[in-house]
Amino acid sequence: MAAYQTSPGTDVAVVINPLSNADPHPTPSRPVAAISLAELFERANLTGDLQAVERLLLERASSRSELIAAASTHTVRSGGKRLRAALALLSARLGNYSLPRVIHAAAAVELIQAASLVHDDLVDQASRRRGRVTVHARWDNDVALMVGDYFFALAAGEMALSPDPRIIGYYAQAVQTIVEGELSPVTVVEPSETALGQYYFKTSAKTASLFEAACKAGMAAGGGSEAQITALGRYGLDLGMAFQIIDDVLDFVGDEHVLGKPAGNDLRQGTITLPLIYAVARTGNPQLRTIVERGHPSDGEVAAAIAEVVAVGGVEAALAEARRYIGQAIGHLAEFPPSGAQRALIDVAHFVISRNA
Amino acid sequence: MAAYQTSPGTDVAVVINPLSNADPHPTPSRPVAAISLAELFERANLTGDLQAVERLLLERASSRSELIAAASTHTVRSGGKRLRAALALLSARLGNYSLPRVIHAAAAVELIQAASLVHDDLVDQASRRRGRVTVHARWDNDVALMVGDYFFALAAGEMALSPDPRIIGYYAQAVQTIVEGELSPVTVVEPSETALGQYYFKTSAKTASLFEAACKAGMAAGGGSEAQITALGRYGLDLGMAFQIIDDVLDFVGDEHVLGKPAGNDLRQGTITLPLIYAVARTGNPQLRTIVERGHPSDGEVAAAIAEVVAVGGVEAALAEARRYIGQAIGHLAEFPPSGAQRALIDVAHFVISRNA
Repeated sequence: MAAYQTSPGTDVAVVINPLSNADPHPTPSRPVAAISLAELFERANLTGDLQAVERLLLERASSRSELIAAASTHTVRSGGKRLRAALALLSARLGNYSLPRVIHAAAAVELIQAASLVHDDLVDQASRRRGRVTVHARWDNDVALMVGDYFFALAAGEMALSPDPRIIGYYAQAVQTIVEGELSPVTVVEPSETALGQYYFKTSAKTASLFEAACKAGMAAGGGSEAQITALGRYGLDLGMAFQIIDDVLDFVGDEHVLGKPAGNDLRQGTITLPLIYAVARTGNPQLRTIVERGHPSDGEVAAAIAEVVAVGGVEAALAEARRYIGQAIGHLAEFPPSGAQRALIDVAHFVISRNA
Repeated sequence: MAAYQTSPGTDVAVVINPLSNADPHPTPSRPVAAISLAELFERANLTGDLQAVERLLLERASSRSELIAAASTHTVRSGGKRLRAALALLSARLGNYSLPRVIHAAAAVELIQAASLVHDDLVDQASRRRGRVTVHARWDNDVALMVGDYFFALAAGEMALSPDPRIIGYYAQAVQTIVEGELSPVTVVEPSETALGQYYFKTSAKTASLFEAACKAGMAAGGGSEAQITALGRYGLDLGMAFQIIDDVLDFVGDEHVLGKPAGNDLRQGTITLPLIYAVARTGNPQLRTIVERGHPSDGEVAAAIAEVVAVGGVEAALAEARRYIGQAIGHLAEFPPSGAQRALIDVAHFVISRNA
């Protein structure tokens, strides 16, 4: 069963619940895929705490420099749904929850994420992110470089306010790993062992490592044991892998109005992702190889390649892999007794695989 | 009395001791200006501890990514004389010194400095730094961006190993301030009140704030009181102001073989510094204004502007200002009883104003 059933020849994705058969946990009162992340947070009674994180982030975006204040505020306001902060908060709720004790770890992960995105957009020269203009496009490259640095420093500042050396260590390690991922592109579509090895390294490093750190930081702030921190870290890592795979799938079958960025972006930029690697492995289609190797494909070539990747099951295979990660992620939560927070973390896993943006 | 007596029409700087009359402390056994920083550290019995810092930095430069390991090792090996680490160590020695307790703070400040320089060189598109090729020139812009981020993360990692929330706070604040300075250029040469205000803000933020943080971090690691930490911070701030003014002076009268970068660089790039601001204030010479406002001066125009700035006393006035800061810096050390570390910090102040590279 597929999270996205794409009618051949169209870009319309029909979202259904990919885990409804496999899920060992009771299904929530309404189909998970129909729930937005905001509803999920509301149900978990998390909205107020996330608003407190948001206020903190906006406060931090101030600066003596008007330019930095403007670009930082723009960046915070482009910050998305605060999934990583929510993971830190929910992880802390598995232990002894205190918002003052975990809020700085939750803010820090969003500040690190913001810093990485601003620098990532600079490397990619992407003009839009989540439907909003990027910092280097709105101001210039130097401002984007410095605002990224500013956000890393703000994250360090949060650590100073909640000085648990483990939490600092998790985040410092995550940023090092993100950088390693940023500079480790997938360079080939085949042989598929090589391509898959590169893809998993990059995805684990660039995306999943920060999910892992957010969960570990939250669990540490909640006074968890080393075993609990390790289990939550594994949940975060698997969740992050699935999150990125779905991101890559959405580049093939997503609605660009919902995504806030053009579909087919990866193919256009020669970025090799899981659906393409699987599609090439299944067909050996030389046209698919050529489009990323040669570069600068036309809109028609991109559309044809997308249709081909979907038709030969590349998207389907990638979704199966994402589902496998989600199953693993939920498995790690079995270490914890049932609770509202545990239920919410399971719901987050369902959301990640059924999201359409 | 001048630190640099420049023969008109030449670039030769004759270095003498600028503080020999004003210094309230006994002069060292040989003229300070003849001592290199390495000799000064040796005399203070600091060489072994700085070597331990250096080994730690080289260890940290490793990575699973060969590219990051290579670029990071290149960056560490281009790291200069470790003045900021030395300040942290010497500050700690004013209190209860323990190398294991202060070494992470000393390494962190050098990692932050390295990150800032790599990003600063990227903004300036400078091809050389201290006589060595810069990271973006040797690799590319994306690698420089990411290696800078990597060094910020390494610095955070050091904080996790020596988790004093005050030290993390000093460094986080310093990086925020450096960024504010980076994005606050001096935009005018006159009116001089405006130009001087911009110059002092930028210099204080971009350079002096990290000297301040290094000293405060060292004093905190040495168990100093809040009053002692404040006094050392002021020493660092004043020392850093003088350090940058001398840097700017050397761009007019330094020997480029000793500097490891071409002289007249600032004028060529339209960077407005203290000697130029003073020279314009003294003469109102429209040619000096034009050279930075118009941009892209010829070598002849740069040479003529340098000669003019020196001839009208712009360099001399900037040196007087640097000497004032050094006097202030040394004054803050009066809070501490005489000791080898206090003597060494005074010697560092003498070195800063008499250095020729």
